[in-house]
Parts: sequence; C-alpha cells; structure tokens
Amino acid sequence: MSSSSSALETEIFQYIDLHQNVLVENLEEWVAVESDSVQPGLRKEVIRMMALVANRLKVLGATVNSVNLGSHQLPDGQNLPLPPVILAELGKDPQKPTVCFYGHVDVQPAKKDDGWKTDPYTLTEINGNLYGRGATDNKGPVLAWIYAVETFKALKLAMPVNFKFVIEGMEEAGSLGLEELLEEEKRCFFADVDYIVISDNVWLSNRKPALTYGTRGNACFFVEVESGDKDLHSGTFGGIIHEPMTDLIALLDSLVDPTGHIQIPGIYDNVAALREEERKLYESIEFDLEEHKNNCRVKKFLYDTKEEILLHLWRYPSLSIHGIEGAFHEPGIKTVIPAKVIGKFSIRQVPHMDLSVVKQQVVEYLENVFSKRNSPNKLKVSMPLGAKPWVADINDPLYIAARRAARTVFREDPDFIRDGSTIPIARMFQTITQKSVIMLPIGAADDGEHSQNEKISRYNYVEGTKVFAAFLLEISKLHGQLQEISNTKTDN
Amino acid sequence: MSSSSSALETEIFQYIDLHQNVLVENLEEWVAVESDSVQPGLRKEVIRMMALVANRLKVLGATVNSVNLGSHQLPDGQNLPLPPVILAELGKDPQKPTVCFYGHVDVQPAKKDDGWKTDPYTLTEINGNLYGRGATDNKGPVLAWIYAVETFKALKLAMPVNFKFVIEGMEEAGSLGLEELLEEEKRCFFADVDYIVISDNVWLSNRKPALTYGTRGNACFFVEVESGDKDLHSGTFGGIIHEPMTDLIALLDSLVDPTGHIQIPGIYDNVAALREEERKLYESIEFDLEEHKNNCRVKKFLYDTKEEILLHLWRYPSLSIHGIEGAFHEPGIKTVIPAKVIGKFSIRQVPHMDLSVVKQQVVEYLENVFSKRNSPNKLKVSMPLGAKPWVADINDPLYIAARRAARTVFREDPDFIRDGSTIPIARMFQTITQKSVIMLPIGAADDGEHSQNEKISRYNYVEGTKVFAAFLLEISKLHGQLQEISNTKTDN
Repeated sequence: MSSSSSALETEIFQYIDLHQNVLVENLEEWVAVESDSVQPGLRKEVIRMMALVANRLKVLGATVNSVNLGSHQLPDGQNLPLPPVILAELGKDPQKPTVCFYGHVDVQPAKKDDGWKTDPYTLTEINGNLYGRGATDNKGPVLAWIYAVETFKALKLAMPVNFKFVIEGMEEAGSLGLEELLEEEKRCFFADVDYIVISDNVWLSNRKPALTYGTRGNACFFVEVESGDKDLHSGTFGGIIHEPMTDLIALLDSLVDPTGHIQIPGIYDNVAALREEERKLYESIEFDLEEHKNNCRVKKFLYDTKEEILLHLWRYPSLSIHGIEGAFHEPGIKTVIPAKVIGKFSIRQVPHMDLSVVKQQVVEYLENVFSKRNSPNKLKVSMPLGAKPWVADINDPLYIAARRAARTVFREDPDFIRDGSTIPIARMFQTITQKSVIMLPIGAADDGEHSQNEKISRYNYVEGTKVFAAFLLEISKLHGQLQEISNTKTDN
Repeated sequence: MSSSSSALETEIFQYIDLHQNVLVENLEEWVAVESDSVQPGLRKEVIRMMALVANRLKVLGATVNSVNLGSHQLPDGQNLPLPPVILAELGKDPQKPTVCFYGHVDVQPAKKDDGWKTDPYTLTEINGNLYGRGATDNKGPVLAWIYAVETFKALKLAMPVNFKFVIEGMEEAGSLGLEELLEEEKRCFFADVDYIVISDNVWLSNRKPALTYGTRGNACFFVEVESGDKDLHSGTFGGIIHEPMTDLIALLDSLVDPTGHIQIPGIYDNVAALREEERKLYESIEFDLEEHKNNCRVKKFLYDTKEEILLHLWRYPSLSIHGIEGAFHEPGIKTVIPAKVIGKFSIRQVPHMDLSVVKQQVVEYLENVFSKRNSPNKLKVSMPLGAKPWVADINDPLYIAARRAARTVFREDPDFIRDGSTIPIARMFQTITQKSVIMLPIGAADDGEHSQNEKISRYNYVEGTKVFAAFLLEISKLHGQLQEISNTKTDN
C-alpha cells in the first residue's frame, strides 16, 4: 500500500491548493442562485442555474446539450416548465475510458428565518466552514469535479479519461424526467460510458473519508381496515361493533417485536448471508456511537456495538410504522370511531430481498392475523411504493481507484460504507445503463444537507477536488491495465 | 293499569289538537332564527333568540330573569358575549310541587349546501314531518312544554304545579357558564324545585315512546410515548432504535381483545351487577337490530340479541381507540419515525365505576405492559377528561308520572332506555341541585339531531305536548299522594 503521491499528483495538488480561492469564489457565485426546485415560484432561478452550469462546462471545453424535458403539472393544475438536464462531453479518445459524472445544482428550500446563522444564499466562511444552501448538496461537489477536470487543462496535462456530465436541476423534487431521459439515452449518450461517479452524499464521520457501496431499498405498505362509510360516535356505538381501529392496531402490533425483529414469516429468508470479508469492513469504520445517539436524541439503541448498529442500519431490513390515515390526529379529544383507517408502514429492503416476494409475505401474514380476529370489517393491504436496494462490488475498478485516491490525499484508507436510506439515483443509473457506479462523497457527516446552516468545510472542498483528480489518474491507470489483461487474453 | 284519559285530559288534548297549527307557527318563527352557537359570527342571532324566549315566557305570565353570563374568549383571542341564561318562574303555591324544565334554543350549524333538501331555517312540512334546524333539538320540545303550560291557562284550569324554566343558548357549544350558574343558584332559584325535566334527547325507536334513565360517562386517556424531540428518518435510523410508534401500537393493542372485552385488570370490578328486574326492562324495548346495523353501516355486531346489544351500549363499559397525534396522518407516504406520539382512547363509564380508580387501573396496566418492552422511551399516561355516568331510579315519582302520561297519550307503555353517550346535563343538574331529574324525550329516533334534514314529526310534536300536559297532572297527583303519606306518618 502506497500512500505517497506521485510527482504528477503533487503538481496537481499544488495547483489546486494555490487556486483554492477560485474554487470558493465559484461556489459563492453558484450558492447565490436560489435554485430551489421545490417551490414553484423559484423555478426560473433553477433554470438560470442550469444556464450557468452549461456556460461553465462550455468554458471547460465541453460540448453541452441542454435537454428540454418539457413541463410538469402541479397538484393545483398549474403547469411549470422543467429545468433542462445538461448532458455534456469532453474528449472522445477511444484509447481512454469514459467517466460520467452525475450531480445536481438545485437545492432544498432555505430561509434565514428557518434558523440560519447566516444568509443561506450568501456563502460565508466561518472557522474554515463554507456555509450556504447547496454548499455540500450538491453544488460544491459538482464544482470540485469540474475543477479537478480543469486542473488537467490548466496544467496542460493529458486528459486521463474522456468525460461526460449529467447535471440536473430537479433532484430535490424527485428527479422528474431523469429516468425517462436515461432510458432514451442508454444506447446513445451512455453507450461509450465505462464508469459512473455520483458524489451526492456524505461521509459517515466528520473527518474520515468514505466510499459508499450500497443503499437500502424500501417497500411501503398501506393496511386499510374499513367497517362502513360513516364515522361513528363512541357513545352511541362503542361496545357493540368491531372497531376498525382496534383491528388495525392489532395488525400493526403483529409486525415487529420490541427488539426490532420483524415478525413476518420468511422475511429474512433472502437476506444475503454476512460474509467474513464483509464483516471485517465494519471493524475499521469510524463511527461515533455516542455522537450518533446525541444526534437522534435517543437514550439507547437496540444494539450495543458499532458493528451491530451499522449492520442493522445498512444490510438488514427494518420495519417502521409511520402513522394512521383516517383516525383522529389533532390535539384534544374526539370520541369518534373512525370507519376507515389506513396504517402506513415500510420495510427497508436489502440484497437479495425481492419486492414481489416481500409483498406476498406481508399480505399473507396480515390476512392471516386478521382472519383470526373474526372481524366483519374489510381488510386491504397494498404496496404503493417499492424501491429496490443497491449494492456495488467493492472490488470493481471504480472502488479500487477511489480507495487509492482517498488514501493518497488523506493518507488513510477510506471507510466502505452503505446508506440505510433509499437513494434511488445509484440504482437507477446502474439498472438503466448497466454500467459500474460508485458513490464517492467528499462532504463530512456534519454538513447538514437539507438542514439549516448547511456547509462544506474548505478542507473537504479542496481535498475533495484533489481526490477527484487523483481518482481520474487511478481509474485511467487501472483501466489501461485491465485492457492489457483483456487484450492478452484475447491474443492467446 | 289505566290507559284511558280522564275528562280533564280529554279537554286538554282536544285543545292542543285544535290549536296545533299555532304550535307549528310558533316553531316556524323560532326555527327562522339562525341561533347557531358554534359559529362566532352568529352569536347575535343566539342573543336575539334568547330575547324571543324571554318574551314568550312573559306572555305566558312568568317572571323572567335573563342572567348575563359575561363573555368568553375564542382560541384566536377574540372576546365574544355569552347569551344570557333565562331563569323564569310561574306560580308560587306552597301546596304544589315545583317542576323545573330545562331546554336550549341554540342550534348546530346548518347550511342548505350541507345536503339539506329544504332551507334549514324555513320550517317546511313534508309528509307529516316538520323539517328545520332545531325542530327536534331543542326548539320543538321547549315550545311543546311552554304550550302544555299555556293550555292550562287558556282553559282557565288550575295550574297543577309551580313552574320554573332554565333555558340556555350555549348547549351546542358546551353550555359555557351554565354549571357555575347552577352552583350559584342551587340555594336560591333551585331551593324550592322538586323535580327537574329535561327533554333534549330522542326515543330509541321511530314510533314507540321512551323515558331515559341513564347515560354513560367517559374517561378519556392520552398515552404519550417519546424518544426525543426530533422526528427521524426511517432510512437513517430504522433498525437501531426503539421506535415510539412501535411502543405505542403495542400499548394500544393491549387494551381490548377482538370481542370488545377490555383487558385492563379490575376494570369490570365496580360495574353494577345486572339485576333480574333490570334485565326484564330490556325484553319489551322496541329496537330494530337490522335498522341499527344499516344505520351505522356495519355488517355484524359483536352480539346477536337485542338485549345483549343494548346492555353493552348502556350499562357496560366500552373502550374505543380514536387515533394518534404526532404520527403521519396525511394521504400518501412519509418515511418518518415520529419522535413523540400520543394515542387517544376512551372508556365509557357506567355505575358504579369510579373515575379515579379507573385512571389508576389504566395507568398501572399500561406502565406494566410498557416495562416489559425494555424500551428507553418515555411513557406518560394521562386522563384529560373524566365524565361520570348518570342513572336515575325508575321508581322515582318523576318516572312513574311520565310513564303514566306516555301510556295515556300513546296507549302503550314507554320503553325505559339509557343512552350510551355522555350527556352531562342530567348528571350536572342532579349533582348540583340534588333534585330528581328525568330525561323525557318527545322526538323520534330518526329525527336527525345534528344532521342534515333535522325534523320533528307533527305527530310527535303535538302528542309530545299532550304528554307534557298529562305528565303535569300526574306529577301533581303523585306529589299530593306522597305529601299525604308523609303527613300521615308525621301525624302518627
């Protein structure tokens, strides 16, 4: 294992260090655009932001295609134009691999009044942190990537790879239209792509780098119990009817035991067995249990060790009950017997759970529990949303290259982490394009994406740019070696 | 048992029959006032209504005192004047008993758009039914009582009793200020009252008269489970924490079994044993099970016989779960782990359950169930509202007199019924004044109080007036007999 940088790397890193204020100024300019994709009134700012990105990529020398996605309809009937998705490319050397970078430049809503210490749209540096909406999610990483590419140009170095860019402006509003675009472009724009890099998440720790190789999926369920079409008064009917709420509460209570173990028969059958190699990955991970506990304000976790906690967050399913629609939910008292109640719960999915199998197991189990109650009410179980989990092979060249890059820049091995949440983007790219995908974060755990006082540290921003540059050298090198092996094999 | 009317009764009944259009015109005039006490903007109409009542009682010859109750504050800070409560009296003969009638002339909100076939504030007769807001709840019965009294005057008959009236205008908004007024007046206005008559409910059947001798109370509970002050994301924390919703669902599920039986130890200990005499009352009650089933749109009740159904509605406790505050309750999906959830349920109270004992049983039971879960979350069980049940002695002179009156008018014995709901008014009068109270309804089961197309039938309105008149004769007679017995005893 070498953690020292080559002369080439040293030259690149020095250039980045020297020009770091340009990097910060670029981010200041982008953060100043209130490209909030959630609030309809700010859509024109998102569109203005996309034009800035297109311009920035043209300056880089890329061929830029701003793909018009038309418009979408809001719940109130209003039609709103979608911002374009930018597909750009730079370099077409058939000898080099092609790396496609995905990022987004729209942001979550933010107002000073929400509890920001600084104006969210004025990038402000305090104690080495750059505060501003979008600083880490995701304008900073997008600029870091662009700057890493630019550094090769500035230093008149050979481009290590061919570049492609997919930059969107609707990520915080559900990436409307992106999936269809990927489908359309899979045999065009994506045909010659070898690797896809996404940098839209953060490390697990505040100081140790990480590579993300998996996200959980999610199967959402509705359990509807209905007695009739009329809510009843608990004085006039309490005591003589099978109340739908009582049935629903019993159904929900049958799902999970006090230790968090899911009670649905067979639900764990398809969960991938934990291999020794995989378990070892967890040992070195930097994760502060106490900090995490404080973070979520709970007194005690279901498990005591770091390893058990992370395994249950990342590679085992979990079941959460979110609430009930149709019952009384306001403050105060209402002595109602609701006629139709819908319980909502979800089961986080991990490899190799199959959504259709899970659905069948849940439906059969709940129907069985319900049948034992002899209730005349109607039960309906549905799965309105099912998102598959994603997991990458950490021995893929993408991960080897990213690991080497992180080691070069930070002088330590990155953690191999997953995300307990469902981030559909990696799986979407992988499923549609059939290419290798890596999630390569440069922000730290405490960056506060989606929160007040979102930030990226100057350190993470600058060193992250270096990681991207080093990664490009490493993937180029690795790809060349793989080609040689492959050619040798073909020759023989 | 005599069901034929005396010459005096015949004379009175004929007068009422002949003047029934006056009765209907009076009701038309009162229904025309939109005396909705719920909507602040209509408060002046309630106040105008009270003035009409005061005037009507003055015409009757009563001394009228419109008691100013001041004002009350709305949740938005606005101060709104309370309508006066009318305390009126007519006659002060120490030889006669004094009967106090309670009624209200405010109404529930009603708009034609809500689904009324006719304008709710224009009394409209269709097929013998008088449709209009307040027709049965409670303007019709108040006028019937006034007219019954007036009939004695018109026919120049001796007044059978002394009269008192308590007429309020805030019943539909919680009888604000009434309880305090009763407390203040218990040794003044109520000092010489012998009997209290309330006619603010309806029969159990559409055609058979009924006397109400009991109402259930209600103990409302909040069960709060809290993990911290921050809702969490089920992707980022699902699988490693004791979720408050899972705890709450288990607590709620421990309350009642699929047959409706309450699982809280000791909860049935103080429920009065069912005496044979009491059970017999249920046999003759007219109650259409199928109609009741259709009414509440359920397919099957927990019990098969009329007797079991009514016993469980009226004289056994029942437990209903109303909903959860703090959890996700909207349509759609939100993958939240709520940090603080409050389950709401209530237990209908029957004699001789004691609210403080019930509270202790519930708290101890839930704390015990919770402790077995080993959850680090915080549990808080509270009883924000406790209303006691009310039951009257059906051998009280009030009930004997009312039974005879109903029998005279309708030529059949009335049903002795209770109400599963909590109607605090009867208990309030009884507790504060320590007088005998009867609930003597004249409206039918299908009158639709609080609903669209509220009505009272012309038949019920006119015959109800006769029942009141006959009742006054009967209670006068009974009271005289009781005085004689009492005097005889004193003489010896």
